[in-house]
Amino acid sequence: MTKRVFNFYPGPATLPLKVLEKARDEFLDFQGTGMSVMEISHRSKEWDKTMLEATDQVKRLMGVPDDYKIIWLGGGASTQFYMAPANLSLPGKKMEYVNTGTWATKAIKEAKLFGEVNVVASSEDEKFSYIPKDFKFNSGTSFAHITSNNTIYGTEWNYWPDVPSDVPLVCDMSSDLMAREVNVKDFGVIYAGAQKNLGPAGVTLVIVREDLLGRVSEKTPTMMKWKTHTDTESMFNTPPVFAVYICKLSLDYLEELGGVKAMEKMNREKAKLLYDAIDASDGFYKGHARKDSRSLMNVTFTMANPELEDKCAKEAAELDLIGLKGHRSVGGMRASIYNAMPLEGVKKLAQFMKDFQKRNQ
Amino acid sequence: MTKRVFNFYPGPATLPLKVLEKARDEFLDFQGTGMSVMEISHRSKEWDKTMLEATDQVKRLMGVPDDYKIIWLGGGASTQFYMAPANLSLPGKKMEYVNTGTWATKAIKEAKLFGEVNVVASSEDEKFSYIPKDFKFNSGTSFAHITSNNTIYGTEWNYWPDVPSDVPLVCDMSSDLMAREVNVKDFGVIYAGAQKNLGPAGVTLVIVREDLLGRVSEKTPTMMKWKTHTDTESMFNTPPVFAVYICKLSLDYLEELGGVKAMEKMNREKAKLLYDAIDASDGFYKGHARKDSRSLMNVTFTMANPELEDKCAKEAAELDLIGLKGHRSVGGMRASIYNAMPLEGVKKLAQFMKDFQKRNQ
Repeated sequence: MTKRVFNFYPGPATLPLKVLEKARDEFLDFQGTGMSVMEISHRSKEWDKTMLEATDQVKRLMGVPDDYKIIWLGGGASTQFYMAPANLSLPGKKMEYVNTGTWATKAIKEAKLFGEVNVVASSEDEKFSYIPKDFKFNSGTSFAHITSNNTIYGTEWNYWPDVPSDVPLVCDMSSDLMAREVNVKDFGVIYAGAQKNLGPAGVTLVIVREDLLGRVSEKTPTMMKWKTHTDTESMFNTPPVFAVYICKLSLDYLEELGGVKAMEKMNREKAKLLYDAIDASDGFYKGHARKDSRSLMNVTFTMANPELEDKCAKEAAELDLIGLKGHRSVGGMRASIYNAMPLEGVKKLAQFMKDFQKRNQ
Repeated sequence: MTKRVFNFYPGPATLPLKVLEKARDEFLDFQGTGMSVMEISHRSKEWDKTMLEATDQVKRLMGVPDDYKIIWLGGGASTQFYMAPANLSLPGKKMEYVNTGTWATKAIKEAKLFGEVNVVASSEDEKFSYIPKDFKFNSGTSFAHITSNNTIYGTEWNYWPDVPSDVPLVCDMSSDLMAREVNVKDFGVIYAGAQKNLGPAGVTLVIVREDLLGRVSEKTPTMMKWKTHTDTESMFNTPPVFAVYICKLSLDYLEELGGVKAMEKMNREKAKLLYDAIDASDGFYKGHARKDSRSLMNVTFTMANPELEDKCAKEAAELDLIGLKGHRSVGGMRASIYNAMPLEGVKKLAQFMKDFQKRNQ
């Protein structure tokens, strides 16, 4: 019997056991080809079919309208931090960003290399513990950019900001893609590194409204243009085949479970268990995020006595609850409970938190 | 018993069976962590150790001097087609390229976005069937670029061109990295997509001489700068963990076999078997590459009667010899026999070629 822990790492993160078992079972022989999926030509009919199916699944699961294109790209969301402005910035027009944490800050830094950036709102004043509300995006800009979920601070947008009709909303959805229902039509572009909710590190999904593909300058390197990849069904160069394959198995799994709506329901239930444990602790645990900005994906908290945090993480690990230390830049504790984290794991963690409090209060 | 074919695909390509079996066996539990290697945090000590070891193995296997840095990067060699000039081109200085085929042509196209390019030699006049010899790289340029092996045309450099002492030689070694001994000191930069000789698609290895890292403009996006990645041991963002892991298992395997020297010996033996079958066929098979430019990795040939080519590929496939059709842009036949192709597979193919000739002459 293989050992299996509950993995609360923030990404790369836990994957559904069923996905791993399926991938293992056909690891040496993909669909009867006598080859591993890693070994098969990306131009073979078996691979072509798999990749097109994965794209169709994304469309189905997210209800992607017909005038949007799907791209599977090597690299991570950090690559999109410069590809987004390279593809979308218009000469003489500003780009507008909301700064809700470390990744938004990095995205802003890269955008500045492509033109003037206006940060219309930021929660840096309160250690990124909330999602700003009182701001507005301006008309006449290239695009508006937000980060839907902030893994390090444990905040998440629970509303979508208004954008003027001439401005596409661009969203880094790396850490909550397909964790809850969204209306793709509200966005011009959605991009997401796969390694939190979808699959392994090494592939990024980009969903882009077709009319935006015409903006890119001819002076942009071929691989940097989204259009290169939409024109070739993400097969301009060799795609990260294995990573896409694991995403496809995860999408199969998500469809079996009932899709994004069913997943959102489970995610809300999981998050509630942990936030309830925090809120009922009389200050023993203290949530980092404001209640109205709490993330369904990353539950961040500190302890009234910070010296207990190491002990807490260590004792949790002894019970096979792994990866609970906060990001090295902020400290504290963090439980990442993406789509693939089973309810059972969250229940076990909530119980442990109560027990740990009793023993250490 | 799992079905296993001999896979002559040009990349993604066959991997050592031992590597696949090891990866499968620990697929759900990496080093006793109770997590798949895909699920483990890239900041965990287990992963950190694996990645640093893989880097050390590259250094050992290739004899990389101390003043060179190793980078593992997401994406493929196509990404390096623009990253190389972005990192190396100096204001007002030309870049010089030798055009030996499709990939070199693509590299040249991207370089032109960063400055003036001088193509000092090309074999396009003869369908890229040879490696040019009578040319020279000029002093006072940013860099000189070659493509060591040309997968589509089946040619390979069997000498390294002289470069002026002020000019670094940059080499796209995607399809023959670690297939034969090279003196890294002869190069300023070597880059290679992994999916031919090293691992799965989705990771690229860059070996760069340290003094060249200072050239890059501050206006270059962070992820595009090699220096970003050398400064962080390739951990600036989440690396493509699984792809690096498979590369590491391949490096283990290569070390067990006796390293690059032993591998080169086997590769020469394998290539000779197929070229001998071509040369002994009295024109039934016709090698595409000139004899002095023949690739050890991709054996390309046509048939005197082109109508037989489909039949040949089909009958080979019935014997589990897969992927022998030439690239869609050139037609003909191609047997890709990278490091991981066993001698046994090549022997079987050589025998089949003789038998097929007898039956169809």
